[in-house]
Amino acid sequence: MVSIEMIVAARARLRGQARRTPLLSSPFLDEIAGRRVFVKAECLQHTGSFKFRGGWAAVSALDPELRRRGVIAFSSGNHAQGVALAAKKHGAPAVIIMPNDAPKVKINNTRALGAEVVLYDRNREDRDEIGARLSEERELTLIRPFDEPQVIAGQGTIGLEIAEQAAEEQIASAEVLAPCGGGGLTSGIALALEASAPDFKVRPCEPEGFDDMARSLASGKIERNVAPSGSVCDAIVTPQPGNITFPILSRLSGSGVVVSDEEALHAAALAFTRLKLVVEPGGAAALAAALFHGDELNGETVIAVASGGNVDAELFADLLRKYG
Amino acid sequence: MVSIEMIVAARARLRGQARRTPLLSSPFLDEIAGRRVFVKAECLQHTGSFKFRGGWAAVSALDPELRRRGVIAFSSGNHAQGVALAAKKHGAPAVIIMPNDAPKVKINNTRALGAEVVLYDRNREDRDEIGARLSEERELTLIRPFDEPQVIAGQGTIGLEIAEQAAEEQIASAEVLAPCGGGGLTSGIALALEASAPDFKVRPCEPEGFDDMARSLASGKIERNVAPSGSVCDAIVTPQPGNITFPILSRLSGSGVVVSDEEALHAAALAFTRLKLVVEPGGAAALAAALFHGDELNGETVIAVASGGNVDAELFADLLRKYG
Repeated sequence: MVSIEMIVAARARLRGQARRTPLLSSPFLDEIAGRRVFVKAECLQHTGSFKFRGGWAAVSALDPELRRRGVIAFSSGNHAQGVALAAKKHGAPAVIIMPNDAPKVKINNTRALGAEVVLYDRNREDRDEIGARLSEERELTLIRPFDEPQVIAGQGTIGLEIAEQAAEEQIASAEVLAPCGGGGLTSGIALALEASAPDFKVRPCEPEGFDDMARSLASGKIERNVAPSGSVCDAIVTPQPGNITFPILSRLSGSGVVVSDEEALHAAALAFTRLKLVVEPGGAAALAAALFHGDELNGETVIAVASGGNVDAELFADLLRKYG
Repeated sequence: MVSIEMIVAARARLRGQARRTPLLSSPFLDEIAGRRVFVKAECLQHTGSFKFRGGWAAVSALDPELRRRGVIAFSSGNHAQGVALAAKKHGAPAVIIMPNDAPKVKINNTRALGAEVVLYDRNREDRDEIGARLSEERELTLIRPFDEPQVIAGQGTIGLEIAEQAAEEQIASAEVLAPCGGGGLTSGIALALEASAPDFKVRPCEPEGFDDMARSLASGKIERNVAPSGSVCDAIVTPQPGNITFPILSRLSGSGVVVSDEEALHAAALAFTRLKLVVEPGGAAALAAALFHGDELNGETVIAVASGGNVDAELFADLLRKYG
């Protein structure tokens, strides 16, 4: 359902729109990890996360008539902003359904990017139902956050860039660690690496309590999380793996790595100090795995995707005081 | 004394060593500034500031025999780290003389990069005298922080990259704002732009009370600052323009822009929120000029250099609470 050809086509559509984000490193991080650590800085992407890639790939692939009517998305915030900006640049209306406990910065930015934001209660309302109703009423095209072939193809362009940048750094093989919610980023990277760097293996990284992908990969079938929310890693809290993403990862991914909220916060502080990057806690899950779960990793080199940087200043000030 | 040929040669020596840092932007910053703002993210350079370029350019240009004996530098911290890493990578010993009130992160990192750090009291001791004595005793080559042709040539490589990246963004002309201490960065960029993008003009940006370059450019002769320290923009507090840098800027630079400490802190908070970059207050002086001194600027587009990101976590947490 998602092919390398779709990823290559998405890259062509993203040219001049998405940034080729840098691959960064620091001897101080290498020392902590006990191996070479490279960080793919997707927090520097437009809208502050990799989600702009998938949003642009999906909106740009729509039939022009459908696009004119508008798009709808549900998201805790990063997909929201990615779709909002992609829609705005295409001149298409966007409605975004967000949980009312999403970080303020994400809600505000989504509105500032021109989208109509509809808030819902994560514990009492069903976002899928709200999305279905609104999209029917207003003839909007739903752009799912991860279980959507064009979105996966867009995120997969990160895998193509990692393969190229690793070659530039003369890295012959590596584990590629990616923060994982529903698996759109991880499965897109997995497909891109299969085609362009077969000696690289992707591994999904999740917070404790929301390790549905790790458990699903271990059991061989889709497993759900118990709680709907409750991790500081809000960007990667989803109920369960996607129906499209899970089979891709079953075939191509290494086992999952599960990090604590504390480790994610600590990794965000180290990205601040050592890389001069602002990474949100969920976006730092892969760096946390690289730094603090070395005994679960293989090889001399790991590449961690820093997937987003949309974090409230207050929370970041707290983590700097604690870990900086 | 410094030519475009030296800058081009420095770039060849820096290839594979320094990062080509990205040119970033945000519609939110454009809106504040009322024009297009691009940020050259030198805080993502190795050691967290542009100073690695000048350090590498100078150390790599030394006679191998001199280099083997070692180098010495005085610096409030960014030049220190740049020279320390450049020396370490060349296998050369490095002694760094730093003020005892420099940010802890800068002192610690310089030590961690293998340099011997000698602390002095900025108000009671003369760093030039300490440097001269140590370099004589131990046959070390002094690498001045800005008034040194090879250092200026190294910093000038940023100007070459800005010219290329501006062309990629189809920017035909712009003012290039640079944080300015002694003028090494600003004069290097000025020379590079003169040769590679003559429609671009550099403008030095300084904090209030330490606007020696702005006043010197206005009066046509070298003017000194009254106080030796007292700005949060520690990276760009120097007593007076350099004897090499000032004539270059007299010939090529636009007038200086002077920002308050508050504006620099506010700009650092906006770089956090909008660009996901960690920029130290002195490194944010040019972005502050772009955002808050628009009436002193010309043209539709400005390019601000974010020159460094080595800021203590505690200070940054404070500024996030106030401006984030």
